[in-house]
Amino acid sequence: MRRHGLLAKKVGLPPGTLLHVGSKRAERPTITVLHYDEESAVEKEGVLLDELVADSAQAGVTWIHVAGLSHVEIIERLGQMFNIHSLALEDILNTNQRPKLEDYGEYIYIAIKMLTYQPDKQVIAAEHINIVVGSNYVLSFQETDRRFFKPVRERIKSGQSRFRKHGADYLAYALIDTVVDYYFVLLEQLGERVEELEEELVTQPDAKLLPAIHNLKTEMLYLRRSVWPLREVIAQIERGDSALFKENTLLYIRDIYDHTIQVIETVETYRDMTSSMLEIYLSSISNRMNEVVKMLTVISTIFMPLTFLAGLYGMNFKYMPELEWQYGYPAVLLLMTVIGVTMYRYFSRKAWI
Amino acid sequence: MRRHGLLAKKVGLPPGTLLHVGSKRAERPTITVLHYDEESAVEKEGVLLDELVADSAQAGVTWIHVAGLSHVEIIERLGQMFNIHSLALEDILNTNQRPKLEDYGEYIYIAIKMLTYQPDKQVIAAEHINIVVGSNYVLSFQETDRRFFKPVRERIKSGQSRFRKHGADYLAYALIDTVVDYYFVLLEQLGERVEELEEELVTQPDAKLLPAIHNLKTEMLYLRRSVWPLREVIAQIERGDSALFKENTLLYIRDIYDHTIQVIETVETYRDMTSSMLEIYLSSISNRMNEVVKMLTVISTIFMPLTFLAGLYGMNFKYMPELEWQYGYPAVLLLMTVIGVTMYRYFSRKAWI
Amino acid sequence: MRRHGLLAKKVGLPPGTLLHVGSKRAERPTITVLHYDEESAVEKEGVLLDELVADSAQAGVTWIHVAGLSHVEIIERLGQMFNIHSLALEDILNTNQRPKLEDYGEYIYIAIKMLTYQPDKQVIAAEHINIVVGSNYVLSFQETDRRFFKPVRERIKSGQSRFRKHGADYLAYALIDTVVDYYFVLLEQLGERVEELEEELVTQPDAKLLPAIHNLKTEMLYLRRSVWPLREVIAQIERGDSALFKENTLLYIRDIYDHTIQVIETVETYRDMTSSMLEIYLSSISNRMNEVVKMLTVISTIFMPLTFLAGLYGMNFKYMPELEWQYGYPAVLLLMTVIGVTMYRYFSRKAWI
Amino acid sequence: MRRHGLLAKKVGLPPGTLLHVGSKRAERPTITVLHYDEESAVEKEGVLLDELVADSAQAGVTWIHVAGLSHVEIIERLGQMFNIHSLALEDILNTNQRPKLEDYGEYIYIAIKMLTYQPDKQVIAAEHINIVVGSNYVLSFQETDRRFFKPVRERIKSGQSRFRKHGADYLAYALIDTVVDYYFVLLEQLGERVEELEEELVTQPDAKLLPAIHNLKTEMLYLRRSVWPLREVIAQIERGDSALFKENTLLYIRDIYDHTIQVIETVETYRDMTSSMLEIYLSSISNRMNEVVKMLTVISTIFMPLTFLAGLYGMNFKYMPELEWQYGYPAVLLLMTVIGVTMYRYFSRKAWI
Amino acid sequence: MRRHGLLAKKVGLPPGTLLHVGSKRAERPTITVLHYDEESAVEKEGVLLDELVADSAQAGVTWIHVAGLSHVEIIERLGQMFNIHSLALEDILNTNQRPKLEDYGEYIYIAIKMLTYQPDKQVIAAEHINIVVGSNYVLSFQETDRRFFKPVRERIKSGQSRFRKHGADYLAYALIDTVVDYYFVLLEQLGERVEELEEELVTQPDAKLLPAIHNLKTEMLYLRRSVWPLREVIAQIERGDSALFKENTLLYIRDIYDHTIQVIETVETYRDMTSSMLEIYLSSISNRMNEVVKMLTVISTIFMPLTFLAGLYGMNFKYMPELEWQYGYPAVLLLMTVIGVTMYRYFSRKAWI
Repeated sequence: MRRHGLLAKKVGLPPGTLLHVGSKRAERPTITVLHYDEESAVEKEGVLLDELVADSAQAGVTWIHVAGLSHVEIIERLGQMFNIHSLALEDILNTNQRPKLEDYGEYIYIAIKMLTYQPDKQVIAAEHINIVVGSNYVLSFQETDRRFFKPVRERIKSGQSRFRKHGADYLAYALIDTVVDYYFVLLEQLGERVEELEEELVTQPDAKLLPAIHNLKTEMLYLRRSVWPLREVIAQIERGDSALFKENTLLYIRDIYDHTIQVIETVETYRDMTSSMLEIYLSSISNRMNEVVKMLTVISTIFMPLTFLAGLYGMNFKYMPELEWQYGYPAVLLLMTVIGVTMYRYFSRKAWI
Repeated sequence: MRRHGLLAKKVGLPPGTLLHVGSKRAERPTITVLHYDEESAVEKEGVLLDELVADSAQAGVTWIHVAGLSHVEIIERLGQMFNIHSLALEDILNTNQRPKLEDYGEYIYIAIKMLTYQPDKQVIAAEHINIVVGSNYVLSFQETDRRFFKPVRERIKSGQSRFRKHGADYLAYALIDTVVDYYFVLLEQLGERVEELEEELVTQPDAKLLPAIHNLKTEMLYLRRSVWPLREVIAQIERGDSALFKENTLLYIRDIYDHTIQVIETVETYRDMTSSMLEIYLSSISNRMNEVVKMLTVISTIFMPLTFLAGLYGMNFKYMPELEWQYGYPAVLLLMTVIGVTMYRYFSRKAWI
Repeated sequence: MRRHGLLAKKVGLPPGTLLHVGSKRAERPTITVLHYDEESAVEKEGVLLDELVADSAQAGVTWIHVAGLSHVEIIERLGQMFNIHSLALEDILNTNQRPKLEDYGEYIYIAIKMLTYQPDKQVIAAEHINIVVGSNYVLSFQETDRRFFKPVRERIKSGQSRFRKHGADYLAYALIDTVVDYYFVLLEQLGERVEELEEELVTQPDAKLLPAIHNLKTEMLYLRRSVWPLREVIAQIERGDSALFKENTLLYIRDIYDHTIQVIETVETYRDMTSSMLEIYLSSISNRMNEVVKMLTVISTIFMPLTFLAGLYGMNFKYMPELEWQYGYPAVLLLMTVIGVTMYRYFSRKAWI
Repeated sequence: MRRHGLLAKKVGLPPGTLLHVGSKRAERPTITVLHYDEESAVEKEGVLLDELVADSAQAGVTWIHVAGLSHVEIIERLGQMFNIHSLALEDILNTNQRPKLEDYGEYIYIAIKMLTYQPDKQVIAAEHINIVVGSNYVLSFQETDRRFFKPVRERIKSGQSRFRKHGADYLAYALIDTVVDYYFVLLEQLGERVEELEEELVTQPDAKLLPAIHNLKTEMLYLRRSVWPLREVIAQIERGDSALFKENTLLYIRDIYDHTIQVIETVETYRDMTSSMLEIYLSSISNRMNEVVKMLTVISTIFMPLTFLAGLYGMNFKYMPELEWQYGYPAVLLLMTVIGVTMYRYFSRKAWI
Repeated sequence: MRRHGLLAKKVGLPPGTLLHVGSKRAERPTITVLHYDEESAVEKEGVLLDELVADSAQAGVTWIHVAGLSHVEIIERLGQMFNIHSLALEDILNTNQRPKLEDYGEYIYIAIKMLTYQPDKQVIAAEHINIVVGSNYVLSFQETDRRFFKPVRERIKSGQSRFRKHGADYLAYALIDTVVDYYFVLLEQLGERVEELEEELVTQPDAKLLPAIHNLKTEMLYLRRSVWPLREVIAQIERGDSALFKENTLLYIRDIYDHTIQVIETVETYRDMTSSMLEIYLSSISNRMNEVVKMLTVISTIFMPLTFLAGLYGMNFKYMPELEWQYGYPAVLLLMTVIGVTMYRYFSRKAWI
């Protein structure tokens, strides 16, 4: 679910051509319909396409959730029922669609990314989430059947929640809020990874850290690309241009806006920290190189003069008076010791050893 | 088709002087005229300049496509027929013109770049595309006769497409959309190149990667320079200042705007990744240097003392008692082995070997 | 109190759920009520929840200060009494809330960070401060019972201060001003740390400086994240959208705005200086490496030829006429001295020694 | 004509003091007067100051061009004749004036820089160009007598050009356009220099490239500083605030604006490429260092064990059985060969040789 | 006068508390009063506090200049006389106040920095300048008694200057203009320092340059922090919101605005050049390291084989036929020469020597 698939749009197809762009998933999409008004809430799981017609005619708020995008005909059928523009339907099916909001007047189309961290592969998994908000209905689409929105469903059914008093706009808010809450979970996991790497960097800087830091940096880039447009989406709602979002919901929208800003700031901080880590890593490599070269220099500087001296008295000249002296050998040994100790002290004083 | 030609504008010529700026291509330009209304579509290929007059007088939408810019008189003639300003004609002929939109009231002039990747030379090839949109006609110009717009032609002729119901503005949209679709193809190819380099960087970092990364970076710079102004062009249309673009086409324009943003974001991400790759490359060079220097140090540190010892007992002093000992030689060999093994262990423990 | 806790928001809880997010502190929160009008000021410390009712009904300005956020019921009760929105109450309890201002019409909710420097751990400690400003009351909340706002209390009670003439807005201003004043104290401490490091960098560049610089950089990042949103908060007040802040208080607000800008500029300058320090550090490492390698080269270049010469005359060829010469040995010694001195001079002239 | 002179403004002089700031040039300024209307054009070269009075009273457009700024009295006199504000006159004389536009109502003062490349010194030469546009006159001033504007003069005199139909604003446009055209010439020359350096960088990276790259970078900085304010100047005209520039000239102004943007983009691209070149240069230095160190390591690793072995059998112990063996010497030679070949193969396999 | 004092604001003091923040200076402040109208100008130096009352009641423009901020009572008294807000008085006394403009309606308070370069210490000295402009008076305050504004005084007294015709706003302009003129002097000095360092960098790159470059960079940071807010201050006046600045003075204000922009651009250029210098410095260190390591490698590569050969024939094997050969020694010498020369040529061809 990485940058690969981002670009697979086919040249030459007319706009609005419905085509599922993304990795195929075999399972049949599940449709869940939840209808509620001030008094009651009725949920039906595994609804068939044909049953859908009657539901949408009811009063109150109808939430149709489709888990799975591989069956184009379901999206097409829902599009006809709710009179959705073909460009919106195309965007629903294109799992590479970046987060955006498009106001079609009668309804608003919102695309966002559900992001979760897979600690084993150390990558961020993204899922394309689509929300269509009408005056009394919400359609939501996701790629898999992971039950991200279960708590929302529970709260609606529990009866005493705010959902009953608010309309479809509040439901849309609740779905976006859930996605943003997942971002915080993701950030917490990334934050732990950052601290882990920072810790390792200080205790045992190692060539293996390099790809790890690089990988983290790339993930941050990816995360950033998903969150910045989300901010724009929420800002668009907050500005209150659409009549579909009512005044008392906007307060909640401002709250998520605030959370999005916090997510962005955290991502930027992590990015800065990761860059800083790379610099530290480079510095510590240089430092260690320094140590190694110092050691080489110390060894060479001590042994080269000694070896030279030994070589000197290994020469075969006939007339070398020192060689004949009785204490020549001990004298040379002494000289060597003096040289060695002097050198050693010199380096100790320079704090090289 | 690189940065060279970008600047060849002649000093002192009056503005609006028609002059083909670009590499000369020998072939005669081909003119294709496609006229369509709600009921029918008629295409004529290889139209001569003189035949053009009658066509433009017809009802419906007339699309005149000129493949080849080397014959100034064709552009001049079309300019007179459709009453195009000489500055616009000059821009059509200047293949170095950056993407721009100029609203002349009666018609809109749009310049964009068709970009394709040449994997063999690993460069991006650019082609200067010009679109003039009037109330009931579209003139388009390209440098070569590569058939980028064939799918559009097919869709118009097929009869059941949206083209028949929309006007010239929708045709202009379709042409721009085709160009942007090609960007996605290009990005996919560049993305593969990025991943390829990243892969190589991890498995076998090599001095040969350096010019490859540099080259990729330069191509990104070039791509960026073509895409950013395009975004502005589309934003200008989207703002809806011109009466030529009708409300129902603007929805589609917003869709390309969205795609352009996605292209820009992807280019920026690739740029960041390429920069990051350079850093990683530099780090891995330092790392390997470290390894090499460590090896040198290990070798020197082990052999320098041994060589010194050998030199010591190679000295020719008359009175060197060790030399007379029966077990002097084995003792020295033992000492050497002890020194060598100790050093080796020391470096093993420091994880240098 | 670092980046960890920043993200702990629970997925799936309905918005406005009151939940204390932050490290638990055992002590019971203290409530202090200070009521004043033009003539008198009455302060009660350690007020119980039940006593609060009557107080808020009085004329003049009532300031209720809660030190400690761990008892959710206190915040809940105050919320009911002053009719505070549950989203605001949620933000009061969330100690990770970034600085923000939310105008609820009847009252304004402001969240800011009190920052103090802990020189022993060399980290910045943050405390979540909340201010709710109504027409004739101010509620303030802090996490601990550190008496940041004591001087404000003293000035109110002293009688001759501006507080008596101004309303609740001036009190809110005074609280924010106190927080910003603490920023200056913090900056002064950080500035000393920066100069200290800079000094050390010049006198004794050392590998130990690296984590210190990195740490300082991270603290700067953190500080920046707290101060930038504060600027926005104050700018929002300054713009004068809310009727709660009166004209004559806005002049003071502009004054704090000015201070905030100064804080931001100082933080940015410190950041630049820290980055610059890292560059200097890297350069000085390279410089020292250079010195070390030069030394190695000097030693090798002097002794290698000498050792070679010694080795040459240590060869055992039968016919080596030099060996027989009477002055062979002194001649070689002379040659060696000449070579050594020449080398030494060469390096001296190249300024290597 | 570099950054030196930029700052020479004298402290304490009253504003509007006429003082020639710039390098003195001995020659007397030449005044050329060109008067034209729809029917005729009359040019007089080498006009004296006293003759000027009559000319400016005529109908049509009068263009007075002054080549040379060293004679303050000429500028002063023209200032009186056309009622120019002393601040504008001061700016005309200050050759360090950055590009700017000042609208004085009756006339507009424009300062721009003519830039040409001096390939021999590899610096950009700048000339201060001033244009004063009134309702029916244009005054232009340049520092030297280089005939940049000759083509404009030719076009006016040729009779069939647009000049005759347009007013003074079109003439001003033509002058600015000429200057911008020269920028393209300059950019082409710089572009060639960039490619030349890039080429050299790949084929023979050399320490001599470093100052060349640095020099190019500094020139880019300088160029940028001249072009950015020009963009602003043209944008100010384009916005159409002044009645002096008529609607039909603004189309041409938009055209130069477009060119200016292209110049800026090219400069930025070159800057990016130069930065990238520096990085590549640094990497290739590191790479070569790596090669050198590898070579050193290979040599040391091969010869150190061999030299040790030779030293071993050069020891003078009495009891060294190997020395007595008949095949001792060949055996050692064999051993040395084996060691040497093994080492060599090892490094070959590691791709070091 | 560096970043130290910037932050000394005391926590808990009420706003508007008059307190001199800055280094204490012992001398008593001097008050100079200059009163002028269209006909005459009267200057009194060393005016006492008590004499001030009468002066301010006169017609025309009164300029009261206070040199020295250490005597709070003077500022307090002037504040009462001219009815200055206590926040403005506080800012006058705070020498760390950043440049700002505050419009109090009746008068405008302006704080700017006088910057001068101290070439001996190579730091920028800053002095806090305050200007209060009323309808018919100007109060100015500076820290020391350096006579920056003497030329202004001279021009007023000389009689034929523009001062007599304009009001207090023109005087305020003249004071600010003087300060900005000093910036140009400062920039010229810094520019010379930059070129000096650049020159040294090319001719003799040295470790001593590093702190010099760092120091210059820090000064640039400081300069920048003073100049950017000044730009804002002047822009605020230019926008013409205040009735105190009349139309005909605004033209002059635009002129200083222009100068401020030029100052900022120059500072940014110097910053870029300084950064570039650091890069060049790092590159030249790497280059020299490269040279050193090459030399080491050349020496080792030449002498190691030779030393090995010498060692080989220094072995004491009984049966070494070469040793017995009559021409063994010359043959070995020849072999060594061949090896040495070959190596030398090899390195010459690789351009290492």
